[in-house]
Amino acid sequence: MKYVELESHQSFGGQQKRFKHWSAVLDCEMNFSIYLPPDYRNKNLPLLYWLSGLTCNDQNFVIKAGAQKYAAELGMILVIPDTSPRGDKIPDDSSYDLGQGASFYVNAITKPWKNHYQMFDYISIELSELIRWHFKTNGKQSIAGHSMGGHGALMMAFRHPNRFNSVSAFAPIVNPMQVSFGKKAFYHYLGDEKEAWQIYDSCFLMEHYNNEPFPILIDQGTADEFLSKQLQPERLESIAQKRNWPFQLRWQKDYDHSYYFVASFIHDHLLFHHQYLK
Amino acid sequence: MKYVELESHQSFGGQQKRFKHWSAVLDCEMNFSIYLPPDYRNKNLPLLYWLSGLTCNDQNFVIKAGAQKYAAELGMILVIPDTSPRGDKIPDDSSYDLGQGASFYVNAITKPWKNHYQMFDYISIELSELIRWHFKTNGKQSIAGHSMGGHGALMMAFRHPNRFNSVSAFAPIVNPMQVSFGKKAFYHYLGDEKEAWQIYDSCFLMEHYNNEPFPILIDQGTADEFLSKQLQPERLESIAQKRNWPFQLRWQKDYDHSYYFVASFIHDHLLFHHQYLK
Repeated sequence: MKYVELESHQSFGGQQKRFKHWSAVLDCEMNFSIYLPPDYRNKNLPLLYWLSGLTCNDQNFVIKAGAQKYAAELGMILVIPDTSPRGDKIPDDSSYDLGQGASFYVNAITKPWKNHYQMFDYISIELSELIRWHFKTNGKQSIAGHSMGGHGALMMAFRHPNRFNSVSAFAPIVNPMQVSFGKKAFYHYLGDEKEAWQIYDSCFLMEHYNNEPFPILIDQGTADEFLSKQLQPERLESIAQKRNWPFQLRWQKDYDHSYYFVASFIHDHLLFHHQYLK
Repeated sequence: MKYVELESHQSFGGQQKRFKHWSAVLDCEMNFSIYLPPDYRNKNLPLLYWLSGLTCNDQNFVIKAGAQKYAAELGMILVIPDTSPRGDKIPDDSSYDLGQGASFYVNAITKPWKNHYQMFDYISIELSELIRWHFKTNGKQSIAGHSMGGHGALMMAFRHPNRFNSVSAFAPIVNPMQVSFGKKAFYHYLGDEKEAWQIYDSCFLMEHYNNEPFPILIDQGTADEFLSKQLQPERLESIAQKRNWPFQLRWQKDYDHSYYFVASFIHDHLLFHHQYLK
């Protein structure tokens, strides 16, 4: 449970920090970022996990989203993990949608990935314990993410009932089993047996969920270059409607897939989570 | 006066755009970024120029400062130039505080710099005309910047009386003639004749200014690693006091020199300028 502080910057009256630690689950050194709001010193505050998309590490959201301002105002701790194991000895691929920066947050079961690509367990267990060990909270948490990280946030919440009070996503991959990003990643990390894929597919998981539902907010830009082939959030919406789920999908006119889109609506997402974390 | 659009992203209801154009003054191709707020379509809005610091290009502020939200709310166009001429054929230096990314916004008069490093004229004349040619405004403008860009913003305003309604800076180099960043750059770009340096030194320029003063706001972090050796904004403050200048220097406790500092107070700066741009 050791970690080393790499950076600390005063930000909106709180601190934006970055740490590294040895991950036994991933068998490599990992970085993560955390924002501690000004009230952290004298109050027990809730956590919001942010899972990032393809090609990102733990810094993109920290630098580009502008979330610190709202986390400071609302009193929320932000935890931002990396998107995959990292390092020279970690298997990788020359394409941007496989290997380092593209774990899809699964536990790989095929070679050469399985020894390191255990991001589901890393975030669910190891990082989660490390955070609880080192940072005081009020015990409540929610999760959010972008694109591949939107998939990660939704899937994590379906797989851990009662762990997250609310979930939100920007342009998430909701049905990875049926789109080329997901098919490629799942084939490489999980093999060709589709049953191994289902437990990481949010559409499948929502359809078969039999616990208390949690509120979901999704924002999707209409000018998103990945919308028609990779995202199609209406697939999850139609299941949500069938199951009478507390679910809101908002179409944001002219927004694309970038962090300019995330930055434009991150305040709404933090306000959304805040109401369930008090 | 031609330019080519490189990128356009919907951002807080407006558009964050990036362009390239041929600069005759710098004899190379240049990029600049511009934010057009949602009201741009149906109103004539003021401009705020942002000059960036060492190692930056036109994208750092755009990505890291979170200024679009406030520019959208207040109705201000943001113009962000690059910090130097660029390209394989442009003279450069291996240190980060000289050459590409480190023009100090001067017109160089020594070899090998003088053929391209004419950033004072580029921003004062060429870029300024290009912006006026292609974008409608209400005719009012202000200028702001960070570190080397804070020097640039102040110095530009002193050199162009009545052009800018207000000036603000984060951690500016106010007295480049007396600190090592400035001495090194001025020696290389301007030679060893100190008279050539004075017209780029804000302390000198404020001391000898004989036009209508313009309001100045400066924010300075107390944990800034460059504060004691390179910045010392109290030098400008003491001249401002002598001259009875409308001048505010705010010390921001525990903030460093990074964009986390800029992001934390950029709203205040836009509000400051807004009152003089209506």
